[in-house]
Amino acid sequence: MSNIAAAIITIGDELLIGQTIDTNSAWIAQRLNAIGIDVLRRVAVGDNKDAIINSIEQELASVSLLIITGGLGPTADDITKPLLNEYFGGKMVVDEGVLDHLKDIFSKRNRPFLERNMKQAEVPDCCKVLFNRMGTAPGMWFDKDDKVIISLPGVPFEMVYIMENEALPRLKQRFISDALLHRNIITAGEGESFIAEKIIDLEAALPAHIRLAYLPGAGMVKLRLTGRGPDSEILVHELEERQQELAARLGKIVIAMEDLTLEQILGKWFTENEKTIALAESCTGGNIAHHFTQVPGATNYFKGSMVCYQNEIKETILGVKRETLEQYGAISEEVVKEMVLGALSVLNSDIAFAITGLLSPLAGARVTVGKVWMAVADKDRLTTKEFNFPYDRERNKDMATSMGMLMIWKFLNP
Amino acid sequence: MSNIAAAIITIGDELLIGQTIDTNSAWIAQRLNAIGIDVLRRVAVGDNKDAIINSIEQELASVSLLIITGGLGPTADDITKPLLNEYFGGKMVVDEGVLDHLKDIFSKRNRPFLERNMKQAEVPDCCKVLFNRMGTAPGMWFDKDDKVIISLPGVPFEMVYIMENEALPRLKQRFISDALLHRNIITAGEGESFIAEKIIDLEAALPAHIRLAYLPGAGMVKLRLTGRGPDSEILVHELEERQQELAARLGKIVIAMEDLTLEQILGKWFTENEKTIALAESCTGGNIAHHFTQVPGATNYFKGSMVCYQNEIKETILGVKRETLEQYGAISEEVVKEMVLGALSVLNSDIAFAITGLLSPLAGARVTVGKVWMAVADKDRLTTKEFNFPYDRERNKDMATSMGMLMIWKFLNP
Repeated sequence: MSNIAAAIITIGDELLIGQTIDTNSAWIAQRLNAIGIDVLRRVAVGDNKDAIINSIEQELASVSLLIITGGLGPTADDITKPLLNEYFGGKMVVDEGVLDHLKDIFSKRNRPFLERNMKQAEVPDCCKVLFNRMGTAPGMWFDKDDKVIISLPGVPFEMVYIMENEALPRLKQRFISDALLHRNIITAGEGESFIAEKIIDLEAALPAHIRLAYLPGAGMVKLRLTGRGPDSEILVHELEERQQELAARLGKIVIAMEDLTLEQILGKWFTENEKTIALAESCTGGNIAHHFTQVPGATNYFKGSMVCYQNEIKETILGVKRETLEQYGAISEEVVKEMVLGALSVLNSDIAFAITGLLSPLAGARVTVGKVWMAVADKDRLTTKEFNFPYDRERNKDMATSMGMLMIWKFLNP
Repeated sequence: MSNIAAAIITIGDELLIGQTIDTNSAWIAQRLNAIGIDVLRRVAVGDNKDAIINSIEQELASVSLLIITGGLGPTADDITKPLLNEYFGGKMVVDEGVLDHLKDIFSKRNRPFLERNMKQAEVPDCCKVLFNRMGTAPGMWFDKDDKVIISLPGVPFEMVYIMENEALPRLKQRFISDALLHRNIITAGEGESFIAEKIIDLEAALPAHIRLAYLPGAGMVKLRLTGRGPDSEILVHELEERQQELAARLGKIVIAMEDLTLEQILGKWFTENEKTIALAESCTGGNIAHHFTQVPGATNYFKGSMVCYQNEIKETILGVKRETLEQYGAISEEVVKEMVLGALSVLNSDIAFAITGLLSPLAGARVTVGKVWMAVADKDRLTTKEFNFPYDRERNKDMATSMGMLMIWKFLNP
């Protein structure tokens, strides 16, 4: 019943001085999980030969699969390829397939194929090449004793391409294992402790092969059930039974039974109900529109957003009255009401949302930092709400974005 | 001349199944670097006692400072606090300062203070409490032999608060060390290999204590010089000399000599030149506006963005002619020209930018996926450009956002 154990090593000084955020590891872990491979550890090391070799040996001692990303580019600070060649006792040879692909890329980009690019076509003769259609650095697959070591470029979309098309299908074949499955419940409006208290007996009654985790986000808590077992059909049934039981207990705070983002949950509602939405954004500066348009098919229900950052634009585009702006200030219930009604009529949507606020200090501001007014309306109803966010500019913007989408959801599900 | 060595351990199953992206490590690494502490390794482990203890022992063997984040919440899957208590041989005691703070938080949020919340006020008696003004879980500082171990909550803004206000000042006092400094050059329009070839001799001539790294991004490459030495004044001088020399060689592709984002570079230009900008976004769905408004003070030059996702809005808001839309299609040079002129006049800005494109498959589309038209204009000039992005929806959007901002930069710096 035990799963295959894996580790991920990411290489690059940029990870250790904090100039790059590692998104690769999370993606890889998610995909390995889906085929029943557990990631036990993720390690980040710098572009340093000894540190890399030590980490490889340390991780290989306890796992059957090691995925290494980064350090494969053409410049002098990328050292993984020669190092792996030496470590596995191979010799560097030009791979004709990689060479053809490289020349093709350079010619399409109208760039000269330089001598130093020739090195990019070289691979250790002891590895299997994992073709990289999206870039210049090939992936590499090494077998060592009964373990597998895979080296991938650090550029996220190149890594993703190679994993999906070359590595994952081979890993599935190579490692047969238990199923590892997840079920999620998305809640909004209550904190982690409140939820834990409410389901304390149900959590205690979970069998050993099913675990519950709390993943708090902005205004939301995701509950994740993780189960493992030899029979995926039985496991699905068990997980869904527990999921239903928890959701029934939690009642109205449950907003989805799938691992969806708030914009995906809203997208489903607008698609199913064949309604349209339009936005008028001031302080979120287009971020709510950006979230809505991350969902494929948003064009069917998302009309647009008037990002009216300066007051003048609130007047000319949304028809907010100058007197209202002058009397109450841009960040007021009166102004957000005129904004939402303006969006509804100018953009001709079924539902409109508006937001105005002050997210970071500004000379001469009439309200305190963090004050935000939001409004949602359709042709029959209009609701407003005031918020006071206590954080810095970026986090206040993220919070306002989440809370805004949540307010839309509550308006649609009263 | 050697720096203090540190490691970071992040705890949480959510990191190993890929449901959460670790942004904490990068932030911590950056701040430690700034005070001359090198992060040698970053490790992520699950909510598993043995795995956590093994990692702590493994990392402590080679570093003087260990920062641990995560696993401090009130729910059953958070196990770090009792584990550290046991590991350092302490006993759990209620900290009165933490208790008062907790009660205050719960009363402000109108939440009952539950029995299980009492546990959150308990800390090992062998640690120094690092006060967490932003949340409920306190940070903890342990001394062991000549090493320091710091435990912080995983919630990013809580971790940040404790590091900045409690941990970093104490770490500076505790570890006196060499300076470690960075200087950056931001380039746009050429690839990593091209740049490396162009500066090959300058890179080879760098002294041992100064390293150069290439950090490619969307359409841009950041060059980062890292130097270390006992005297920070001498080091600054050396680094800036090399930075100037590299920049002089690279010429026009250099767009900044600081570690700035494209929106910050543009923000500086608009502020210094006292000009305003407005956007008309279709396919980027507000993402360019979102980037512009991440910069404090954007309100002085950023007028707004008309996110016209549906064609109807392009007509009503921007005055794009129906005949143009019908004859050429929404994704065409003709439409993007009318969009940019519409934005310029409707939003009354000095400079306007417009973008229209197809980022993911759509039934009945008249162009191929990835085709994007952009335009920049002021009252005298108008330039357009066509792009064909080969990736998936999210990456196409990111690329279009970067390339759009770069196009604005090139228009301003012809």
